[in-house]
Amino acid sequence: MRISELSRRSGVPVATIKYYLRENLLPRGEAVSATQSDYTEDHLKRLRLVRALVEVAEVPLGRIRAVLAAVDDPGLELHTLLGIAQYAVTPQFEAPADDPLWQRAERRTDELLVELGWKVDAASPARGGLVRAVATLDRLGTPPAPEMLRGYAEAAHRAAEWDISCIDPGAARADTVQEVVVTSALMGQALTALRLLAQEDESARRFG
Amino acid sequence: MRISELSRRSGVPVATIKYYLRENLLPRGEAVSATQSDYTEDHLKRLRLVRALVEVAEVPLGRIRAVLAAVDDPGLELHTLLGIAQYAVTPQFEAPADDPLWQRAERRTDELLVELGWKVDAASPARGGLVRAVATLDRLGTPPAPEMLRGYAEAAHRAAEWDISCIDPGAARADTVQEVVVTSALMGQALTALRLLAQEDESARRFG
Repeated sequence: MRISELSRRSGVPVATIKYYLRENLLPRGEAVSATQSDYTEDHLKRLRLVRALVEVAEVPLGRIRAVLAAVDDPGLELHTLLGIAQYAVTPQFEAPADDPLWQRAERRTDELLVELGWKVDAASPARGGLVRAVATLDRLGTPPAPEMLRGYAEAAHRAAEWDISCIDPGAARADTVQEVVVTSALMGQALTALRLLAQEDESARRFG
Repeated sequence: MRISELSRRSGVPVATIKYYLRENLLPRGEAVSATQSDYTEDHLKRLRLVRALVEVAEVPLGRIRAVLAAVDDPGLELHTLLGIAQYAVTPQFEAPADDPLWQRAERRTDELLVELGWKVDAASPARGGLVRAVATLDRLGTPPAPEMLRGYAEAAHRAAEWDISCIDPGAARADTVQEVVVTSALMGQALTALRLLAQEDESARRFG
């Protein structure tokens, strides 16, 4: 297909496609004349993935290249690929030096993960996000009760089971990673909104 | 107490307290000399609430005044007060004009809320946030399955039950609203992080 059709089918403007080509985020098409190239379904899949990373997850270009390299490595296990994609789209939080509240939140987080029996890497950026939320709650004088954190963890695991059950291990890897990136970001927004709606419902039942 | 003690006990710098006083977000203390005022425990409660609204929930000043007015209205039911607080800290999304995907997402959202039997107001900004997430997923070619949205709603309701069960209807209203604002924002961040950690765990179990 020509670049105009690639644009129409992906919803990405031609100027943006040309920018991705210049940045090597999208491979060149096959030249069919001095000014025209031919693009394939693989280009379309790749373009949808790049757009999801740029527009939905707002990942910086350098980290996008790392995700694309992982997608292109056929020797990588699916679990490893999913980890690379998730870590790339998750904000990283640095541990502040010598902060006792941070250290206490880190201990609480690790104890929770051990108690839950979850198989997660200590380098997970989401672990840092959880430590940061717990440390901030502690600093503001409202540390979360252990049973509340466990209740939240159970709720989060139910949502995550849905996320992972949607993954088809036989699908094209660019499609899989695109879906994971999009679903992770937007179903995360949906979960946030649903929790607020559920708070209103629960408050109506208890206090309304 | 003097302004220095108010600062120490709240963790808010004196210059910031003076700014809140000038903006009428914090009532003046009782003047004890030409240059000194005396502050009470009520000032401390109010200061903690203002800080939570400004720093944690990043609410604009105009909307903070509306929340403070609600806190100060003893005739307001607790459920109404909680609604005012939640709506003030939740981003508002305008429905785009004549967008069939938005309209479809709106119908899906309302059908889901009816099916769940949740008591929520049509004007809830969280409803707009959910419509926006569903419409964007649809636009990107990955509309969420109805059973996935229901599964997410159940997970969200479990988290929300924890949120609401922490509220003591007999507590001072400024304390209640401060806790709701802080918990809503930071336990929301904790839920996001826990979902990502749970995804890693679930992926390890299925594909690792």
